[in-house]
Amino acid sequence: MFRLARRFRPAVFALTVVSLGAGPVLAQSDPLPSWNDGATKSAIVDFVNAVTTEDGPNFVSPDERIAVFDNDGTLWAEQPVYVQLFFAFDRIKALAPEHPEWKTQEPYASILKEDFKTALAGGHKAIAEIVAATHAGQTTDQFAEEVAAWFSSAENPAKKRPFSKMNYQPMVELLAYLRANDFLTFIVSGGGIDFMRVFSEDLYGVPPAQVVGSTGKLTFEIKDGAPVLEKLPEVDFVDDGPGKPVGIQMHIGQQPLMAFGNSDGDLEMLQYTCLAPGFSFCAFVHHTDAEREWAYDRDSDVGKLDKGLDAASQNGWTLIDMKDDWKTVFPPEGGN
Amino acid sequence: MFRLARRFRPAVFALTVVSLGAGPVLAQSDPLPSWNDGATKSAIVDFVNAVTTEDGPNFVSPDERIAVFDNDGTLWAEQPVYVQLFFAFDRIKALAPEHPEWKTQEPYASILKEDFKTALAGGHKAIAEIVAATHAGQTTDQFAEEVAAWFSSAENPAKKRPFSKMNYQPMVELLAYLRANDFLTFIVSGGGIDFMRVFSEDLYGVPPAQVVGSTGKLTFEIKDGAPVLEKLPEVDFVDDGPGKPVGIQMHIGQQPLMAFGNSDGDLEMLQYTCLAPGFSFCAFVHHTDAEREWAYDRDSDVGKLDKGLDAASQNGWTLIDMKDDWKTVFPPEGGN
Repeated sequence: MFRLARRFRPAVFALTVVSLGAGPVLAQSDPLPSWNDGATKSAIVDFVNAVTTEDGPNFVSPDERIAVFDNDGTLWAEQPVYVQLFFAFDRIKALAPEHPEWKTQEPYASILKEDFKTALAGGHKAIAEIVAATHAGQTTDQFAEEVAAWFSSAENPAKKRPFSKMNYQPMVELLAYLRANDFLTFIVSGGGIDFMRVFSEDLYGVPPAQVVGSTGKLTFEIKDGAPVLEKLPEVDFVDDGPGKPVGIQMHIGQQPLMAFGNSDGDLEMLQYTCLAPGFSFCAFVHHTDAEREWAYDRDSDVGKLDKGLDAASQNGWTLIDMKDDWKTVFPPEGGN
Repeated sequence: MFRLARRFRPAVFALTVVSLGAGPVLAQSDPLPSWNDGATKSAIVDFVNAVTTEDGPNFVSPDERIAVFDNDGTLWAEQPVYVQLFFAFDRIKALAPEHPEWKTQEPYASILKEDFKTALAGGHKAIAEIVAATHAGQTTDQFAEEVAAWFSSAENPAKKRPFSKMNYQPMVELLAYLRANDFLTFIVSGGGIDFMRVFSEDLYGVPPAQVVGSTGKLTFEIKDGAPVLEKLPEVDFVDDGPGKPVGIQMHIGQQPLMAFGNSDGDLEMLQYTCLAPGFSFCAFVHHTDAEREWAYDRDSDVGKLDKGLDAASQNGWTLIDMKDDWKTVFPPEGGN
């Protein structure tokens, strides 16, 4: 009668549930055309076929088909630094005339000199300060408008490509394929929730309520007769590392069936999904493509994948080899 | 291209969007059979028809059809005290042998003597302490199992009716009617999120990810090789009053189109929904039925509706008169 975690349900439960779905979506036309045929693509398709085959031993009812995806480095590029930091840097440049003290105050001074390496030397603390200074003091609606305006022209300086076209085409297809098989797809990212929601539907087909991310404190007030939410310069929740399972519980309230990440910050999310008893699927996107994207793992400052590589090998998780497994990386430019 | 708040979108936007829905679900058979015909029912049906009529002036695309509902007193009964407190009281009785100090320590001593009025004299602080003492120190899965077990037999002492049958039949029909018209229905309640998720799908058809509520801090760990989330005795977020618009932004990320509450704790949620420009619908369930349920408003300790009554009258919000508008209050007992 009442909802318990998937792993506590007797196996027979799944068999007695009336499926809302139409069974597996058969690949009459390939639903993952940007993926090369091979072990990785087969592992994904075989898993989806198994959980959607109603009379099979691993059938999972549609309401338990939850797939979670990290964003930076998993659904779009995160090099040379996170997209949200480029947004923050541009905000600092725009706000600099109102803050003469930034000329000598770190990390702002380095940002204004375009020395991002020095600016970020303070690690997560510096990033949190930059985000607070650039994201707070405005309403959630004003912030969304600014992010949208920024995306309409901002480009990745290394690739000379709009940030809005640096999502990974194979992952966009995977998200759509899972939804066609009655999965609910969620983003679970260390990125700011209000930042990601501006583009999550457009780039990934993920609506705002299915975005889980880091949050700043908000305050509600009626201003000139209109209700607004003001963003405060105070971190509320960091959706990274052990924060990811917590964010999943707070927002989704169910253990995922599939999890995709690319860095050690996703390790706990994959553990939460795949170390519990039951049929599940976990994968890391492995950045192996120095030519089309970037190649990095154990030694990278951004998106370090070290413990995660060991855990994948220990637990038999899938490694998505960007160079070998993906026919294309980015979507075609132009149009929308 | 990118997602902005509904009120910032040019009106033409709605007209150019391809509707995913099939237009209004016409009442060939009455979708709200437990509602008496009259102004209240008409107001709801007229609003839904207006936002689902594709060539009408007030059409709202399905991805903006967000309806939010308070739980206690709006979707189920909250008298003589909140259901979650009855659960907490029973937990205290069960845990009392391990806590001999509770015999003399308030609020536990009063609870063990079944003197709930004295126990709750400390107001929200006492409630928070009771909830922390009874909900923490276990995993989220253990907690869900306990709540489910409790619901299988617990009864409202005043009505001698299972708590699991004290949801309001007319509101259950309303939720289903809205979903049939491509609304996403969310619970936004001061109640504990982990508590409500155990029954939200069964009682209301609302899945766990569409429940917004108060949260306690959680911590992730691997225990004997298995990943668990432990509930800590520390309040994280109180989803009440001005917290409701904040909870809506954090979880849903969109301004609701319809909001339903029953007490002053819902006022800010209704303001957030209905004081902004644009077509919207807000209503309070008004407890006017001393015979079938309870009658209370401005002077009640639980579910006080005072400022809200004034705001409803000022802003033209709908008052759902439980006695006059509802043919039946509770679902039939027995079965499931």
